[in-house]
Amino acid sequence: MDLKVGVIGTGAIGIEHIKRINEKVQGAYVTAVSDINVEQAQRLANQIDAVFFETGEELIASPDVAIVVVTSWDPTHEKYVLEAIKHGKYVFCEKPLATDSAGCKRIVDAEVKAGKKLVQVGFMRRYDRGYIELKEAIETKKFGEPLMLHCAHRNPTADENYLTPMAIINTGIHEIDALRWLLQEDYVSAQMILPKQTSFTHEKLHDPQMLILETVSGIHIDLEIFVNCQFGYDIKCDVVCETGEIGLEDPAYTHVKAKGKNYTKIAPDWQTRFVEAYDYEFELWVRSIQTGNLTGPTAWDGYAAAVTMDACGKARDTGERTLIQLPECPALYK
Amino acid sequence: MDLKVGVIGTGAIGIEHIKRINEKVQGAYVTAVSDINVEQAQRLANQIDAVFFETGEELIASPDVAIVVVTSWDPTHEKYVLEAIKHGKYVFCEKPLATDSAGCKRIVDAEVKAGKKLVQVGFMRRYDRGYIELKEAIETKKFGEPLMLHCAHRNPTADENYLTPMAIINTGIHEIDALRWLLQEDYVSAQMILPKQTSFTHEKLHDPQMLILETVSGIHIDLEIFVNCQFGYDIKCDVVCETGEIGLEDPAYTHVKAKGKNYTKIAPDWQTRFVEAYDYEFELWVRSIQTGNLTGPTAWDGYAAAVTMDACGKARDTGERTLIQLPECPALYK
Amino acid sequence: MDLKVGVIGTGAIGIEHIKRINEKVQGAYVTAVSDINVEQAQRLANQIDAVFFETGEELIASPDVAIVVVTSWDPTHEKYVLEAIKHGKYVFCEKPLATDSAGCKRIVDAEVKAGKKLVQVGFMRRYDRGYIELKEAIETKKFGEPLMLHCAHRNPTADENYLTPMAIINTGIHEIDALRWLLQEDYVSAQMILPKQTSFTHEKLHDPQMLILETVSGIHIDLEIFVNCQFGYDIKCDVVCETGEIGLEDPAYTHVKAKGKNYTKIAPDWQTRFVEAYDYEFELWVRSIQTGNLTGPTAWDGYAAAVTMDACGKARDTGERTLIQLPECPALYK
Amino acid sequence: MDLKVGVIGTGAIGIEHIKRINEKVQGAYVTAVSDINVEQAQRLANQIDAVFFETGEELIASPDVAIVVVTSWDPTHEKYVLEAIKHGKYVFCEKPLATDSAGCKRIVDAEVKAGKKLVQVGFMRRYDRGYIELKEAIETKKFGEPLMLHCAHRNPTADENYLTPMAIINTGIHEIDALRWLLQEDYVSAQMILPKQTSFTHEKLHDPQMLILETVSGIHIDLEIFVNCQFGYDIKCDVVCETGEIGLEDPAYTHVKAKGKNYTKIAPDWQTRFVEAYDYEFELWVRSIQTGNLTGPTAWDGYAAAVTMDACGKARDTGERTLIQLPECPALYK
Repeated sequence: MDLKVGVIGTGAIGIEHIKRINEKVQGAYVTAVSDINVEQAQRLANQIDAVFFETGEELIASPDVAIVVVTSWDPTHEKYVLEAIKHGKYVFCEKPLATDSAGCKRIVDAEVKAGKKLVQVGFMRRYDRGYIELKEAIETKKFGEPLMLHCAHRNPTADENYLTPMAIINTGIHEIDALRWLLQEDYVSAQMILPKQTSFTHEKLHDPQMLILETVSGIHIDLEIFVNCQFGYDIKCDVVCETGEIGLEDPAYTHVKAKGKNYTKIAPDWQTRFVEAYDYEFELWVRSIQTGNLTGPTAWDGYAAAVTMDACGKARDTGERTLIQLPECPALYK
Repeated sequence: MDLKVGVIGTGAIGIEHIKRINEKVQGAYVTAVSDINVEQAQRLANQIDAVFFETGEELIASPDVAIVVVTSWDPTHEKYVLEAIKHGKYVFCEKPLATDSAGCKRIVDAEVKAGKKLVQVGFMRRYDRGYIELKEAIETKKFGEPLMLHCAHRNPTADENYLTPMAIINTGIHEIDALRWLLQEDYVSAQMILPKQTSFTHEKLHDPQMLILETVSGIHIDLEIFVNCQFGYDIKCDVVCETGEIGLEDPAYTHVKAKGKNYTKIAPDWQTRFVEAYDYEFELWVRSIQTGNLTGPTAWDGYAAAVTMDACGKARDTGERTLIQLPECPALYK
Repeated sequence: MDLKVGVIGTGAIGIEHIKRINEKVQGAYVTAVSDINVEQAQRLANQIDAVFFETGEELIASPDVAIVVVTSWDPTHEKYVLEAIKHGKYVFCEKPLATDSAGCKRIVDAEVKAGKKLVQVGFMRRYDRGYIELKEAIETKKFGEPLMLHCAHRNPTADENYLTPMAIINTGIHEIDALRWLLQEDYVSAQMILPKQTSFTHEKLHDPQMLILETVSGIHIDLEIFVNCQFGYDIKCDVVCETGEIGLEDPAYTHVKAKGKNYTKIAPDWQTRFVEAYDYEFELWVRSIQTGNLTGPTAWDGYAAAVTMDACGKARDTGERTLIQLPECPALYK
Repeated sequence: MDLKVGVIGTGAIGIEHIKRINEKVQGAYVTAVSDINVEQAQRLANQIDAVFFETGEELIASPDVAIVVVTSWDPTHEKYVLEAIKHGKYVFCEKPLATDSAGCKRIVDAEVKAGKKLVQVGFMRRYDRGYIELKEAIETKKFGEPLMLHCAHRNPTADENYLTPMAIINTGIHEIDALRWLLQEDYVSAQMILPKQTSFTHEKLHDPQMLILETVSGIHIDLEIFVNCQFGYDIKCDVVCETGEIGLEDPAYTHVKAKGKNYTKIAPDWQTRFVEAYDYEFELWVRSIQTGNLTGPTAWDGYAAAVTMDACGKARDTGERTLIQLPECPALYK
C-alpha cells in the first residue's frame, strides 16, 4: 500500500518535493496540499489529483494523509511539526526545524513525550554520495582519527535580502549538521572571523565569513561561507586524518580541453549539485517509514544545529570564541 | 494506473531489474515472472507477490501482464520479443536483441509489419549522464564537428568461458551502439588489430583487442577492449572535435591523499559504474510507454549493432578493413 | 668573468648549494669553503678544487671570495652576514637570517648604514613556478582582490628533536614570507589554534597546529602546519578572490591507473617538491649580482618574518589574537 | 676548462640554444657562430663575444671550436655532421639528422668508420621528466609488460606551408623516436589512417592524421597527429600495461575556479611545454662529453627514425600496413 503524503507549503521547494515523491519515489504519492496562496495551491491540487486544504492543521488531521511534508514559510514550521506529532503522524520538515533553539526544544520535548521518533529534518547533505564515502572512511578509521576539517560553502550570488546572519542560519547550517553527523561528535565552541569583503556584496551582508568550530575531542573545523563567489556553487570538505586526507570530489561527468583550458564544469546551483541527494533522502524516508524505523536527521539534530547557530551569532557579534552547550540527549535519540 | 510488468528470465540481471522496477521506478511493478529454473522463479514470485508462469509465452499472453522484460538466455531473446510483438505488448529486451543479424532483422520486419514501435533494447550507456553530456556537446556543435573518438572498455578480469569473439559480442557491443547514437551516423567499415597479449589471458581469448570503426562522414573511432586489465572497470570516450576535446570523466565522489598517492577510486565493476544509468533507463522506459512514445534504442538499433558485429568478426579473422552495409532504414524508425 | 663564491657551512644544505652553483648555475663557481667540521670540509675543498678556510671570517676577507653563501649553524648566521656587509660583499643567507628579530634588526641597520642592498635570504618559495603564477594572478587582479588564503604545509614525519615552536620557526616561516610577498602586504595579527593531535607525534610537539594571519587590508590566511602527516610532503595555497579561486597545483609528471586507484604521486620531501625553485633562486641571485641589482628576499623581509614569528609564539602561548607591528620600512628596501 | 661551442645556424632555434648554453649550462659557452644570413650572425657574434665564420666548414675546423651544434637549414644538416665527424668533434644536430634515410645511413657509416660516437640528435622528448618517469615504470615492469600506447601530438595551428607529409616528418618524428626509446624496441610495421578533416586546415594538408605503429614484440601504438586543434599544444602518451596504465600528466602549476569552470591551463606551444627538457638535454650533452661517454640519441636513432618515416609515407600513400625493416645495428650503438 502506497503512503499518502500531505504537503504543506507549495512554493518552489514544495513543488520540487511533490514532483520527487510522485515521479521518483516508489511507495508514496501526494494526496493533499495546503498553502496560504490558495489559488496556486488549488490549481496544483487539481493537476496532481490531490485534495486542497485551507489550513495545514486540517491537512494533518485528514484521514487521507498518512505522512506530512512541511515546506511552508520558516516561522510556521514549528506549529505544523507539533501538530503532526499530536496526530502521531510522521513529518518531514525542511530546515530550519524552528526559527530558534527554543522552538526546536519544544518539538524535542513533544516528541519525547509522544515516545516515538516521528520527525525528520531536511538535512539532505547526509544523503550525498560524497559525504557518505567520507563518513565511511571516518568510521572505519581507514586513515586514523580525524583531526581537522577544511570546508567551504560557496554560492555564486546572493540578493539584497540576504543579510549577515543568514550566512549561518541559511547557508552554514548545512555544514553545522553534516559535519556533526560526519564526526558523530557535538561541538564545544564557535569562533567567527570576518575577512576582507568582496565588492560584490552590499551594506547589510558581510561576505565572506569564516566559522571555526571545535568538537568534544578537539577536532577543529574551518568553514568559509562565501555567498557571492561569482564562479558557481562550490562545496569543499577536506578531512585531515592521522595518516591521510580525504575530501569531497567536485562532481563532473565530462572534461573538456578548449581555448587553452583543461576543465570540468562547476555546478551552477545547489539543485544541480545535490539533486541525487534529495531523491535519495526521500526514498530512504519513505523506506524507513515503511519499516517503522526512522533513520534520518532527528528533531534532536535540528535542536543541536539551532543551539550551534545561536553560539555562532554571539561569536560573530563579540568576535570571541563562544562556548556551545547542549543539555543531556534524551534516550529517544541515542 | 501502474503498469503491470512480466519478467522472463530471473537470473542475476533479471533479479536486479525486478528490484529496480519495484523499488526505484514510479508507475510500474512486477506482476509475473517466468524462468526455466522453475523452483527459484516460483520462490521469487512468492516473495514479490507475483504470478509464476511455466513459459514465457504464457506470461506474455496473460492479461495480468501489460509490458514485458526479457532477460532470459540470449538464444531465447528473439522468440520472446517476436511473441510480445504478436500480442502488441511493449517489450524491453536485454542485449543482444538476437544472436545474429538475421534474427534481429526478423524482429525488425515483424515490428514494421505491426506498424508500431514496441521493442526497446537494453543499451543503457545512452542513459549515462556523461554520455548525455557528450551527446549534447556534439549536437550543439559547441566544439565544431567531431573528427575522431578515442575509446576504451576495460574489465578487471574475464574467466575461462570468455572467448575471443566475446570482446565484440559481449563487450564492444556497448560502444558499437553508444557511439553510433552519440554521432547519429552509421558505420561504413571496421578493422581489428590484435596487439601484444597480456599474460593474464588464456589460450582461447586474445586480450586486449583494438577495433577501428569509420562512420559515413569519415569520423574514425579507435576502441581498446581489454577484459583482463586487472585494475578496475574503466570506460574512456574522448571525442576530438575541431576546436576542442570532450571526454567522459571517471566518476568519483571523494579524493584521497595517503601513502604517497593522490587518488580517486576506480569503479570495480559495471554495476557500480552504470547503476544510475540502469535506473534512468527503466524510469524513461516506463515514462515513454505511459505517453505512448518509445524513445529508447529500437529494434533497428539492435539490428545495426548486429550487422556491425558481423563485420567486426570478419575483420578480426581476415585482418582486413571490412565494409559495413545496412539496408535502407524503415520509415518506422526514422 | 665568473663570480667566485665562498660557502660557510658544508652540511647537507651547504653541499647541495655547492653542487648547484658548480653544476647548474652559469657564471659562478665555488672557490672557498669553511666549516667547523674541518676534516670533512677540507676533503670537500680538495674534491671541488676550492680553498679551505679555518674560519668564516677569513673566508669572507679573502680576495679569492667575491660573494658569500651562509649555510652554517643557525646561531652563526647573524655574525657572518654582518661580517660580509662589513666587507661590502654580497651574501646569501639560508633562513633564518638570525635567531630572533633583534638579530635581524641589527643586520637591517648595518645594511642601511652600508647604504647598499647586499643581503639575500633563502626564501626559495618565491622562485617556485606555482607561486609565481599565483602572484601574477593577484597582481593583474584577474580575479579581483584576494580575500582569503587557505594554506597547508605538511611533512611526512618529524623526529624527536622537532619541538612545538619549530612548527612556526622552521616550517611556517616559509609561508610567513611567501604569503607576505604574494600579497605585498604586511601582517597585523596572528592567532594560533591547537587542534586534536595525531598519535604520531611526541610529548614535546603539538602536531598539527593552525595559524591564522590577518593582513593590513583584512585578508585572512589560515595555515595548517602538520609535520607528521605520514603521506608525503604537501603544500597547499588556495587564494580566494572576488571572482575566482586560484591555487597551487600538486606537481605531477605522470598519472597511473592501478589496483583500483587513479593516482598521481605526492612528493616525498621538500627537496623533490622545490628542487627547480632552488636552482632558479641561485640562477637569479647570480644574475642579479652581475647586473648590480639584488631582486630577492631582503634583510627587511627576514626581519619582518622574524617579527611575525615572535607574535605567533606569543599567540600560541596565550591562545589570543596577537598584534604584529613593524617599524617604518627604511627607504633602502622600498 | 669550459667547452668551446660553435653554432652553425642562428635562426630562432639556434639563438635559443646559444642563450641556453651561455646562461643555463655550466661548463660550456659559445665561441663561434656561422649562418648564411651574414649580417645577423655577425651582429649576434659581437653581442655574445664570439667569432663569426663565413662557412660552417671553417667553424668546424677552427681550433677555437671544441664541439659543434648544428641548427641550420634541414638540407645542410648532413654535410655539417659529416664534417664534424671528419674532424673528430662532438656534434649536436637538431632533428632531422638528414632529409632522408640514405643521408642518415651515410652519417652512421662515417661514424662507425671513425670508431667513436660523436653525434647526438636533438630528440629532446627523452629529457622530459614525464617521459623519464614512463620509461622507469616500463623498465622496472612495475605494471607488467606494455601492450598498447595511446598517443596524441596536437598543435594549435599550422600555416599554409605545412603540408600533409610534415605531419610525420616534422611532428610525428618526435613520437617515432621517443616511443622506440621508451619501449627499447624497433618497429616492424606502420599504417596510416586519414580521418574526417577539420575545417581549419587547407587543401594541401590532411589534418588530423592517425598513425598505427607495431613493435617487434607486438606492442601497438596509435598516434593522433592534429596540428590545427585550436586549443593548445597537447601531448598525450598513455601506456597500457598488463596490470595498470601510466600516462603523461599535463603539466600545470596552478588550478583555477572561475566562471563556472574548474581548470588548469594548457601549454600554448612546444617551447612552454618542453623548455625544461631542452635545458636538461644540453646539460646532459655537455656533461656526457666531459666524461667522454655520449648518452643521448645517436646517429643510429636518427637513422631508425628516418626509415620509419619512409614507411609512414608509403603507408599514407597506399592506405596499407607497411613493413619496416632495419639492417643489423652496428656494434658501436649497442
